[in-house]
Amino acid sequence: MTITAPTYKDIAARKVAERDAKFATHWLIPEDKLPSADVKDVLHWIAKSGYLTPAEIEITESPVATILDNIKSRKWTAVDVTSAVCHRASIAHQLTNCLTEIFFDEALERASELDKFQQETGQVVGPLHGLPISLKDNFNIKGQATTIGIVNFCFNPEKFDEDAVLVKMLRAQGAIFYVKTNVPVAMMMPESTNHIWGNTTNPMNRSLSSGGSSGGEAALIKLRGSPIGIGSDIGGSIRIPASFQNLYAIKPTFGRFPTYGARSGLPGLESVNSVNGPLGTSLDDLEFYCKAVVDSEPWNHDAKCVEIPWRDIELPEKLNIAICIDDKFIRPTPPIRRAVRIVEESLKAAGHDVIEWVPEDHLRLSEIISAFFLSDGGIHVKAETEATGETIFPYMKPYESAVDISVSQLWKLHAERTKLIKKYLDRWMATAEVTKNGKPIDAIIMPVTPFAGNPNGKFHNYVGYTSPFNVLDYTVGVFPVTRADQELDPRDEESANYNSEDNAVWSDFDPSANHGGAAALQLIGRKFQEEKVIAMMKVISELINYSD
Amino acid sequence: MTITAPTYKDIAARKVAERDAKFATHWLIPEDKLPSADVKDVLHWIAKSGYLTPAEIEITESPVATILDNIKSRKWTAVDVTSAVCHRASIAHQLTNCLTEIFFDEALERASELDKFQQETGQVVGPLHGLPISLKDNFNIKGQATTIGIVNFCFNPEKFDEDAVLVKMLRAQGAIFYVKTNVPVAMMMPESTNHIWGNTTNPMNRSLSSGGSSGGEAALIKLRGSPIGIGSDIGGSIRIPASFQNLYAIKPTFGRFPTYGARSGLPGLESVNSVNGPLGTSLDDLEFYCKAVVDSEPWNHDAKCVEIPWRDIELPEKLNIAICIDDKFIRPTPPIRRAVRIVEESLKAAGHDVIEWVPEDHLRLSEIISAFFLSDGGIHVKAETEATGETIFPYMKPYESAVDISVSQLWKLHAERTKLIKKYLDRWMATAEVTKNGKPIDAIIMPVTPFAGNPNGKFHNYVGYTSPFNVLDYTVGVFPVTRADQELDPRDEESANYNSEDNAVWSDFDPSANHGGAAALQLIGRKFQEEKVIAMMKVISELINYSD
Repeated sequence: MTITAPTYKDIAARKVAERDAKFATHWLIPEDKLPSADVKDVLHWIAKSGYLTPAEIEITESPVATILDNIKSRKWTAVDVTSAVCHRASIAHQLTNCLTEIFFDEALERASELDKFQQETGQVVGPLHGLPISLKDNFNIKGQATTIGIVNFCFNPEKFDEDAVLVKMLRAQGAIFYVKTNVPVAMMMPESTNHIWGNTTNPMNRSLSSGGSSGGEAALIKLRGSPIGIGSDIGGSIRIPASFQNLYAIKPTFGRFPTYGARSGLPGLESVNSVNGPLGTSLDDLEFYCKAVVDSEPWNHDAKCVEIPWRDIELPEKLNIAICIDDKFIRPTPPIRRAVRIVEESLKAAGHDVIEWVPEDHLRLSEIISAFFLSDGGIHVKAETEATGETIFPYMKPYESAVDISVSQLWKLHAERTKLIKKYLDRWMATAEVTKNGKPIDAIIMPVTPFAGNPNGKFHNYVGYTSPFNVLDYTVGVFPVTRADQELDPRDEESANYNSEDNAVWSDFDPSANHGGAAALQLIGRKFQEEKVIAMMKVISELINYSD
Repeated sequence: MTITAPTYKDIAARKVAERDAKFATHWLIPEDKLPSADVKDVLHWIAKSGYLTPAEIEITESPVATILDNIKSRKWTAVDVTSAVCHRASIAHQLTNCLTEIFFDEALERASELDKFQQETGQVVGPLHGLPISLKDNFNIKGQATTIGIVNFCFNPEKFDEDAVLVKMLRAQGAIFYVKTNVPVAMMMPESTNHIWGNTTNPMNRSLSSGGSSGGEAALIKLRGSPIGIGSDIGGSIRIPASFQNLYAIKPTFGRFPTYGARSGLPGLESVNSVNGPLGTSLDDLEFYCKAVVDSEPWNHDAKCVEIPWRDIELPEKLNIAICIDDKFIRPTPPIRRAVRIVEESLKAAGHDVIEWVPEDHLRLSEIISAFFLSDGGIHVKAETEATGETIFPYMKPYESAVDISVSQLWKLHAERTKLIKKYLDRWMATAEVTKNGKPIDAIIMPVTPFAGNPNGKFHNYVGYTSPFNVLDYTVGVFPVTRADQELDPRDEESANYNSEDNAVWSDFDPSANHGGAAALQLIGRKFQEEKVIAMMKVISELINYSD
């Protein structure tokens, strides 16, 4: 008898079957009752479908603080909340394919324990008592796998035996974990697709990508299958999906939130560090989460965290904001440029001081971060993908031809980076010379990508708007501004003709294909300014008043 | 005619001659009036020599705050102070060979400008108005060279055209720079000797080394040729010289003080970062300096600095202190062990909670940091030393045989380090289980080296007591405890027999050769706890009441 080793497809199929068996069948909607594939915008489909009870809708559309207050006041039990969220997450998955690991049973059991604790003691276990939080796939959870889109990790290990530090800290405060969400292979592609779970689509327009690498999170949260979720970002991986789903999000400075115990696609890379942060549907939710994490003193749990408490921020009455509409390498498409103008005009109308930001060295910073990503010669990524023979996505081709450079070469890149980030800071501080009040800018606002969403599989692999701020390690927030509109955002401009990539972006821009896509922007603050970035996004969001 | 390229000795001789020409001849003491080479302890020689005026002695032996107050109140001018300090520094150099660049003229000119400013405005320019500060050689100063012990840097460049960020910030606050101080080749040896300037000896016992790499600073400050000075530390380079001269010092966490614009022996190394901090004769002086630096917001000037203001610290009435007397790899020599027992007994007598700290992973952490230092294959060091053909000191031999490893190998070391520093933090926090008040330790106290000073040229090249805390990036302070005494510290113990290096240390220990050597210890706090480390050292120093 010949035993044939399982192919990567066999392994993936087994993994998916195991996950699928964990969905509660009474929560799943029969295939023929789901919206057909040609229904692109499914944003409001769940609430209108009739499959959720009014109570479930109310719970899943409530802000984090309301959920917690209602549990505390015993209007809702933790089981009520968890059950509603698991139910809605199941449907969100049916609409967008956003989930990887699911563990509703454990979640409901934990919710039940928390309810019992509250009944017996009259107390909550912590500030997050009963709050379901979704997690990007890379966070290790006791009892679950962490596949990060690599087939070889499906059963390797089959279960982690310890929670990541962040998970442990949130759990101690009462958070409930119930799902992990989809990512690209090794989390190093701009679309959340891989050979295990397939592609996660965008609920605002399912012909568009959810983005990557935190695409599963963004799709799930957008459909209210999660009150708040955690993504990670080393080149744009929180910001791109948040922007493609018009969510609010924070990419913090490294050291503000704990990172220990998350699985990395590039383990040991420290020239630039992956950070994690929340994605959500409101700034209050983000602020609540950030404060809860920092208040629990991550520096006592993660050796790389910095002892900076969560601080009260008083913003100046009028902000100094620099705006960049175009990095001069790839011109943003019309809906994104419209979004920038909306913000610029709103700020000016409200009396804030707006200046122009001309990016310098962004291209070189992007090149340096790419060099860091590839600096081990792709050895780790190749070893893991080759282990099962899974085919390589075009986005991952650079890892195939990468060279394991020498440390002396790496040091040269570091030395160059040291100069570039000093120059960037000096330019930031020098804005004091052109602002009306003689103080430097409080923030820079610019696009997250040139795109208001991108057709599945057709992302132009350009992260030059996001990755410089990973090299700089600045705090960055994402906030929604508008949606792409084929009437408002026509092809009535000339190409900027910066270069062939820029021309390709312009020639591919299709107002009707993009219709309904999200047009969000990023707000860049300085290092460790998470409080201030949220506060500034609040000011701007109140001016814009976006809703969908 | 044949032109012969200058040898490294020619280049060095020219550089030294240029420096020597800058000493003011009226300040120099004739050779035959200096103490002879067999006078080892020159600590109090200058004050008793009759070469300084009583006013000069008063100025140079005053605390930093007194100097600044007396300038502010116009009791002293900045010129008075600078002149006295330059005069004493000149003699300190004659006794220990501690200076590299000298620029007394510029210093006196600046002092004169500051006096004029004060006369005209009634104001001081900043909190450091008129304070002379000495700098380790690696800080770039406009108009001066930065040789860091490498002959090829003598005239390459001959002058830097910009101050290091720290220098610029301190200058803006009124500090006056007048000298730079000696270091080892590339600052990567434990004794401050090189082929340009030669060796800096220890003023407590000139047959002993001043230590490295901030040895010139420590010798100068100990002789009061500087009110306060700045060293740097990537493996022990502030702490070893501070301990060998019984000074107070702070090795901060990276990011607390600005580092941009200092010349590195290993440029681009970021796996572990060089930090700078003050060495001084009192904790009040250190505190004054640290607060002045942080109050001037280094994060606005150095892209790698962290926005943590200088904080008021309230210590618990009783501290929880862990003590380590022996790392079980090299047992400290008797004077150091006596110093540890003095501190332990003082703490216990004052009611503090003292527990034992058993180091784990220190050896591996030391190995990892050595691997980081050598990870570029010594290419940079070799290129610079080979450029002039200077001979290689035995301490630097590892750089000759080092291998320029691949980034994939480096990533493995990083990943291992990430686990080790997490384990260290967890062990620290777990001390809460054994302390009386159920809180974790506030600090660890342990030796800086096994030695109370070391004969010149005979340092056992072991930095296993200091370098783990560079990998961990903890804040560390150094404080003096006692002096080696041939009566109190005899060879009456057995060797610990840990290994051959340990045996060599024991067999080389000579109570009479060590007599008078400094026995200082380090106090280890957590990351970014500079305020708390100083405050804790104050508590302990008041109990010990050391003076020399």
